[in-house]
Amino acid sequence: MRFKFPLMAIGLEVAMIVLFSLFVQYETDHNTTSHINNTMAADMDGFLKLYPLFQDVHIMIFVGIGFLMTFLKKYGFSSVGINLLIAALGLQWGTIAQGMLHSHGKKFQIGIKNMINADFSTATVLISFGAVLGKTSPIQMLIMTIIEISFFAGNEYLVGEIFKASDIGASMTIHTFGAYFGLAVAGVLYRSGLRRGHDNEESVYHSDLFAMIGTLFLWMCWPSFNSAIAETGDKQYMAIVNTYFSLAACVVTTYAFSSLVQHRGKLDMVHIQNATLAGGVAVGTCADMTIHPYGSMVIGSIAGIVSVFGYKFLTPLIATKLRIHDTCGIHNLHGLPGVMGGLAGIVAVAMGASNTSTMAMQAAALGSSIGTAVVGGLTTGLILRLPIWGQPLDEYCYDDSVYWEVPRWREHDHHFHDPGDHSELEPEV
Amino acid sequence: MRFKFPLMAIGLEVAMIVLFSLFVQYETDHNTTSHINNTMAADMDGFLKLYPLFQDVHIMIFVGIGFLMTFLKKYGFSSVGINLLIAALGLQWGTIAQGMLHSHGKKFQIGIKNMINADFSTATVLISFGAVLGKTSPIQMLIMTIIEISFFAGNEYLVGEIFKASDIGASMTIHTFGAYFGLAVAGVLYRSGLRRGHDNEESVYHSDLFAMIGTLFLWMCWPSFNSAIAETGDKQYMAIVNTYFSLAACVVTTYAFSSLVQHRGKLDMVHIQNATLAGGVAVGTCADMTIHPYGSMVIGSIAGIVSVFGYKFLTPLIATKLRIHDTCGIHNLHGLPGVMGGLAGIVAVAMGASNTSTMAMQAAALGSSIGTAVVGGLTTGLILRLPIWGQPLDEYCYDDSVYWEVPRWREHDHHFHDPGDHSELEPEV
Amino acid sequence: MRFKFPLMAIGLEVAMIVLFSLFVQYETDHNTTSHINNTMAADMDGFLKLYPLFQDVHIMIFVGIGFLMTFLKKYGFSSVGINLLIAALGLQWGTIAQGMLHSHGKKFQIGIKNMINADFSTATVLISFGAVLGKTSPIQMLIMTIIEISFFAGNEYLVGEIFKASDIGASMTIHTFGAYFGLAVAGVLYRSGLRRGHDNEESVYHSDLFAMIGTLFLWMCWPSFNSAIAETGDKQYMAIVNTYFSLAACVVTTYAFSSLVQHRGKLDMVHIQNATLAGGVAVGTCADMTIHPYGSMVIGSIAGIVSVFGYKFLTPLIATKLRIHDTCGIHNLHGLPGVMGGLAGIVAVAMGASNTSTMAMQAAALGSSIGTAVVGGLTTGLILRLPIWGQPLDEYCYDDSVYWEVPRWREHDHHFHDPGDHSELEPEV
Repeated sequence: MRFKFPLMAIGLEVAMIVLFSLFVQYETDHNTTSHINNTMAADMDGFLKLYPLFQDVHIMIFVGIGFLMTFLKKYGFSSVGINLLIAALGLQWGTIAQGMLHSHGKKFQIGIKNMINADFSTATVLISFGAVLGKTSPIQMLIMTIIEISFFAGNEYLVGEIFKASDIGASMTIHTFGAYFGLAVAGVLYRSGLRRGHDNEESVYHSDLFAMIGTLFLWMCWPSFNSAIAETGDKQYMAIVNTYFSLAACVVTTYAFSSLVQHRGKLDMVHIQNATLAGGVAVGTCADMTIHPYGSMVIGSIAGIVSVFGYKFLTPLIATKLRIHDTCGIHNLHGLPGVMGGLAGIVAVAMGASNTSTMAMQAAALGSSIGTAVVGGLTTGLILRLPIWGQPLDEYCYDDSVYWEVPRWREHDHHFHDPGDHSELEPEV
Repeated sequence: MRFKFPLMAIGLEVAMIVLFSLFVQYETDHNTTSHINNTMAADMDGFLKLYPLFQDVHIMIFVGIGFLMTFLKKYGFSSVGINLLIAALGLQWGTIAQGMLHSHGKKFQIGIKNMINADFSTATVLISFGAVLGKTSPIQMLIMTIIEISFFAGNEYLVGEIFKASDIGASMTIHTFGAYFGLAVAGVLYRSGLRRGHDNEESVYHSDLFAMIGTLFLWMCWPSFNSAIAETGDKQYMAIVNTYFSLAACVVTTYAFSSLVQHRGKLDMVHIQNATLAGGVAVGTCADMTIHPYGSMVIGSIAGIVSVFGYKFLTPLIATKLRIHDTCGIHNLHGLPGVMGGLAGIVAVAMGASNTSTMAMQAAALGSSIGTAVVGGLTTGLILRLPIWGQPLDEYCYDDSVYWEVPRWREHDHHFHDPGDHSELEPEV
Repeated sequence: MRFKFPLMAIGLEVAMIVLFSLFVQYETDHNTTSHINNTMAADMDGFLKLYPLFQDVHIMIFVGIGFLMTFLKKYGFSSVGINLLIAALGLQWGTIAQGMLHSHGKKFQIGIKNMINADFSTATVLISFGAVLGKTSPIQMLIMTIIEISFFAGNEYLVGEIFKASDIGASMTIHTFGAYFGLAVAGVLYRSGLRRGHDNEESVYHSDLFAMIGTLFLWMCWPSFNSAIAETGDKQYMAIVNTYFSLAACVVTTYAFSSLVQHRGKLDMVHIQNATLAGGVAVGTCADMTIHPYGSMVIGSIAGIVSVFGYKFLTPLIATKLRIHDTCGIHNLHGLPGVMGGLAGIVAVAMGASNTSTMAMQAAALGSSIGTAVVGGLTTGLILRLPIWGQPLDEYCYDDSVYWEVPRWREHDHHFHDPGDHSELEPEV
């Protein structure tokens, strides 16, 4: 067990290097002399023009999602650290998987859109990671990264190239897909020993503040996420404007309903950290359509409400009835708002807000995203369930100290942490 | 009381949606056929070119100001959370208020400058929020957001369109205005029960580090703030360069004088967190004028000194003599440096650094900004003073737990926090 | 002693203002009429195009390096605060030092590349700061800033203008130079009283999370660092792509080897915070060469491994055998990967990946960077060793409270901190 994680990681990295050497080229590798310098210069200009949007997406993946998950009091190292590991491996594999599908197995060139899509592909895994956060081992996450991105790339190809559906902000292909994939995995890995909750599954004051770093960077950069691969010009402009206002409206309704559903009207940090972002998810599919700013505000407002209700009523129900435990509530931040986004896309197309897609194509995309996710997630769950991946015992769930060297002093411990205090009990990694 | 906050928030969001549906259009909604495609493409190009600067402003508003206020040990949720609420509502209302004033009540189009200005308008409320931080309820902040942005938009119209004064970085229209508005509100809401201070009105070690996240992002992005709406070309270039060097100089003098004024020469985190930014405020008005880098460094150096002296000597004086309690010391970060910026603008114009404005126009702008702010602030204060807005009792000031569900464990408590422990005493929200 | 720090800081700022007034001009200050408007407009356009890359570098300097060093439990204020002071002073002095060298003592104009280079020059000091972190006074850091940047500017001129070597991401001129300069200083300032370690020289749980903010922003923005001053077009594109993939590969091998070298296979936060960044350092010199993505992934993979081994085995050895105590392990993050980058550059040139440099020029650049650094560092160390700079006593090393007003409650203290409790013992500052 001791060597499984490092050996698998090394093996995967070697595989990536080999695949890159076989398939990946610079945009500047001209094989034909017909390539005009002019065009090349324009390409490079386009690269730099989209680079700030790429950097915003980058921030969302690494800081945004990473810190959002640090709300657990004893699981901050894993949240931000395993997030980094998944994303770094995933962006390499995503580059290959998507590149090869679109080039039909030939060599392909790396442009700014490949880099944006590589980051996008990792988002699906990071969303799913939220459902199983605290209950899995790093080695399980390596496996999930490879499998999930393969399924994602297949579905993305189907949606974009076969159905030719519109999903510019990826409400369906990333958010819905990532959420239901993660829920399927979480369902297979259900631990009935934790059905009454766990002492570690709570936040402390400062861990909630760390999580707000994630929330705010996600919130601010979301307009870039929804517009990064949009058609330059009008559509990119609309994607930014619509997302900006959808998110703003979403914040206001989230605060209103968080207070409304809570006992004594107090605001709940879980809602503020998560539901405020649902407006970015829900407006994703139709972000580059002419839905008008007020239309996006309607979508954002409803998304905030749906998400708060999900956290308050649906998540507990899913845990007890369906035996799916969703640590971060990804169903409420990505699942429900993602489906809502897919439906909003169908409505928008029906209302003539797009001239490139049809209702049927949009519906097929939504169905395919959910279907692929569930099949992929169940498959992955079954593989991860094998008792050979060093998963933590129930009593060591949501605790970094199983996989990390942890400082002697943790702010929420009431005593110095003795790193050797449960050496007999915890599984070797 | 229980429903006042959510109902007011929902009402406001519905109002925003209605107003947007009536007045806000895309830039791509061409009503005339005379609109040339060429121009449109150029517009979109300009949009993307300014988008990184907009994102920097966005970071300042949401992460910068939000985290800067997390220095209080028990008020981090409200600082970063109510900051988000104010900004999200404010940017919608700011879009409408400014757009309608400039379009004289007609429909108007949303461009990147409208988005920048919308973010700007929220800054005034967030500055004022700093003066009353910890002593007000969320519902009071919703009210202040609507009223203050209305006054701001009026004054900004006066300064820009009637006086035609120069104030590119908004030393006068945002910083001076926001500061004196906030001080006026704080004066009306003065609590004599807290004149001897409050146990909660202090930082802990990590809350000061959270605040430094805010400081650094504000500091780094300030050149974008001062240049975002500047004339493309030379003026925008100068606004960036001047602000960059003003801030650098300001840091050095802030450290020097923080050590100088403190007993035993130690540095004070309050100064470092705030006065280091005064250089950005003070160079705002004349940032796009030919004041030369050394000129901006002189301005920044003096601003740092003025701000440190303000924190050390003026704030306590204002609290005891004028009965105005300024939680974050906004007078020292925005008030004094803002006025200094307005005066620097007059001097710069006198010295021929600008050919578009006159001393009289600049003086009128400064006077109008202070005057409008005081009138608006007093009015707002009187409305907020009505005993129906769920303001916290004196003993629960600076404590998130009145309005937020708070984790059982806060790092600075010496015992588990019992969320029900003062249920009889605290006001229902 | 009480006044030495503020007076030196004020003196330095006054000197900077005088130097700027004598030597620094706007790009818009045309002395000749031959200057065509067209070119000017293009310049300004180039300014805005590189501005987002500059902002990324800015983030690395102020947030990245600043927060990376907050891992020490009682030294967060100094880490992030003195980092800000060094950088703010250093960017002014760097502008002058580099500008005057390249203009041969004449007036020069400030463009975006000067601003990027100014930020770069501060990076060397901040790297060296990591070696002596916790063992020096603010006044010593002011002195080091001025001396180190002078040596840096000299070496950078030698490497770029005389040797005409290629070092686009500054593996040699910044990372190698900064590391060996810092180690030389640390060697001279060695405290044998601390050879058994120090109670304060450890992290707490949340200080490690603060440090991860630094890690992630450094990691994300590194492609901008390595490409910011690259030739527009192909080379800038390759610098971004190569760095992106080098960093990704580096993360995976860092995790693998961190687990591999640790007792019981647990991950070590020190490795994750630092070694994950080694890929950015090591690919620096040849980032804009045609090394292909898989080539950069090989470099990144090796860099991660080298860095982890450095932390695990070399740093303790250097401390005991060479009596050089390196607080942050800069030798492993900047020294070894920097040298590796220099060597990779030689190999890449040998393999024909560049047509502008030769192996000899590259080797000369590497030798000169190490040589200048050691000479400069030893000189600086001897000056800093004079017992007049208020350096902390051994028992107060790694403790902010010597130079800062510290809140009564620090999360890791087990009692309220009494700011007056060691007034007799601690040196006056």
